[in-house]
Amino acid sequence: MSDKFDNVSVGKKANVFFDGKCVSHSVFFPDGSRKTVGVILPGSQLTFNVGAPELMEITSGTCDVKIAGEAAFKTYTAGTSFKVAENGSFDIHAKDEVNYVCSFG
Amino acid sequence: MSDKFDNVSVGKKANVFFDGKCVSHSVFFPDGSRKTVGVILPGSQLTFNVGAPELMEITSGTCDVKIAGEAAFKTYTAGTSFKVAENGSFDIHAKDEVNYVCSFG
Repeated sequence: MSDKFDNVSVGKKANVFFDGKCVSHSVFFPDGSRKTVGVILPGSQLTFNVGAPELMEITSGTCDVKIAGEAAFKTYTAGTSFKVAENGSFDIHAKDEVNYVCSFG
Repeated sequence: MSDKFDNVSVGKKANVFFDGKCVSHSVFFPDGSRKTVGVILPGSQLTFNVGAPELMEITSGTCDVKIAGEAAFKTYTAGTSFKVAENGSFDIHAKDEVNYVCSFG
């Protein structure tokens, strides 16, 4: 997995969640799609409610994640990913600084 | 000032400073130059030491800034900017959520 996205547009205004425990910037692709590149600070225990379906790709760090409807938390590390259904939610516990790429739809 | 940078590359890993009080992502331009798009959380009072000269353009929010060598703090808001000399430093106090673009060199 490359450490950059090329030939994109990037939003100058950050997306700040949970008082800064999660911060991302929006990335826009030539095909009109959007992703975010984001970070979750170490020790954060957050619950995200999603609208459109989301693919969360962990690019660095370790986190425990429980997706709504699943029985237990699973551990995700760099190079792994999980999907969240439309209007779903997930709990994420960052063991250290977690970087991710979120894709929508 | 546009709210996006077009035709760029963006790093997937965030730059995290002061335990997350400042978070940015790196943006790479076709001419080889680099900028960061970043956010400073409300109430943060930070001191940055710089290597290469920096141009800090505030894109949203209000902050008080004292550049090393200057006698007093000055207030900067969206659309204003300040320069920091090579190997200089600056104190920045975020009155609210401050977004910025930092250019180097």
